[in-house]
Amino acid sequence: MSTPPTTTDAHDGADPCAGAHPPHAAHRDKDAHLKRLRRIEGQVRGIHRMVDEDVYCIDILTQVAAVTKALQAMSLNLTSEHLRHCVAEAAVEAEASGRTELIDEKVAEATAAIGRLLR
Amino acid sequence: MSTPPTTTDAHDGADPCAGAHPPHAAHRDKDAHLKRLRRIEGQVRGIHRMVDEDVYCIDILTQVAAVTKALQAMSLNLTSEHLRHCVAEAAVEAEASGRTELIDEKVAEATAAIGRLLR
Amino acid sequence: MSTPPTTTDAHDGADPCAGAHPPHAAHRDKDAHLKRLRRIEGQVRGIHRMVDEDVYCIDILTQVAAVTKALQAMSLNLTSEHLRHCVAEAAVEAEASGRTELIDEKVAEATAAIGRLLR
Amino acid sequence: MSTPPTTTDAHDGADPCAGAHPPHAAHRDKDAHLKRLRRIEGQVRGIHRMVDEDVYCIDILTQVAAVTKALQAMSLNLTSEHLRHCVAEAAVEAEASGRTELIDEKVAEATAAIGRLLR
Repeated sequence: MSTPPTTTDAHDGADPCAGAHPPHAAHRDKDAHLKRLRRIEGQVRGIHRMVDEDVYCIDILTQVAAVTKALQAMSLNLTSEHLRHCVAEAAVEAEASGRTELIDEKVAEATAAIGRLLR
Repeated sequence: MSTPPTTTDAHDGADPCAGAHPPHAAHRDKDAHLKRLRRIEGQVRGIHRMVDEDVYCIDILTQVAAVTKALQAMSLNLTSEHLRHCVAEAAVEAEASGRTELIDEKVAEATAAIGRLLR
Repeated sequence: MSTPPTTTDAHDGADPCAGAHPPHAAHRDKDAHLKRLRRIEGQVRGIHRMVDEDVYCIDILTQVAAVTKALQAMSLNLTSEHLRHCVAEAAVEAEASGRTELIDEKVAEATAAIGRLLR
Repeated sequence: MSTPPTTTDAHDGADPCAGAHPPHAAHRDKDAHLKRLRRIEGQVRGIHRMVDEDVYCIDILTQVAAVTKALQAMSLNLTSEHLRHCVAEAAVEAEASGRTELIDEKVAEATAAIGRLLR
């Protein structure tokens, strides 16, 4: 898990999001995400320090909940950007080409991703 | 949020968890928590790299969901340790001293912490 | 909360989902949803009976968790149908008319709904 | 799932919560729970009606999220009562009898229940 995959097979060829250069940066609030992730990394290091210094359990739990919330907020932003660009473009392309599987696949993929966030 | 509190006011004086030296280390699987947190920190850095390299949205979402799960698992372990030691000790002390507020407060505090995890 | 709203203002006029007759039934696995809801209603009644008969707390919690899971599964299905039809149609209409606000609004609305499910 | 279990094997014999008559009613805010469950049942019926009348997807999702929140609030109350009574009594009994497995088992059981709520 420490070496995340860089790409999946799901978005090659017909993926309207894969054509652009750089592929996803154009429609992503990249700087905001990177900044947020740096802060989350700092929060995780803070929790490490709390555990190391034997801080009270409840205070640690409060910080863990805060990091979880921050990750959820980020997920929601990423999901929104994905719907606005990748899914919307797939819908337009499916309509133009008559290949409805383009949008079917994107929706199935997005639904699966949302399902992983819910669980 | 990058400078987490080191202690709360809720556990001084009558707190059966506050007397020990070191206070909470004794009953906490500290090494496992620290190891887990190092891995989570690495995962967050991995997501930072993914965003920076314009990796596909869905792949990033999958990694964010994995980190959220790891934090939840850690929360559950911390909660379990807290119930087993701090809450259980408060129950015994409340019974011995007749001061039922000792256990009432610990349960209210633990419930609030669980509530923050649920939301 | 016992008298849910029947419609919102958000989907009149330009909403591509509002034109059809019946508006949403066409693209919704309606029978499956209705069946699922009847079962959830039965489960809630079962929990009522458990509380009334003083069943053990943990057994009640297990059932409450099961109903929550069932509602989440239903939410995910509804979200998928919404993306596949309402959001995809808005994307096509926005492309055809050049009115990008049509898709912007649908995505903002869907994101807010997903956010409510996460919390 | 429509016929929930009435009891588990986990709380016979040594369970300090099983001795009382009625076993769990004494320490449970029973009337409040029953009232809340009636309202949740009404909400589920309301969602059934909304699906049947082809109400807009997002409005249905909003109601499903509201019911999920109501169930979570109820879970948290039940958990609190369980900690305050069953777990606390097990701690006292374990201390008095020297049988630490009494509290170990209760904490493991409560942790598993909280874990089911989180997922």
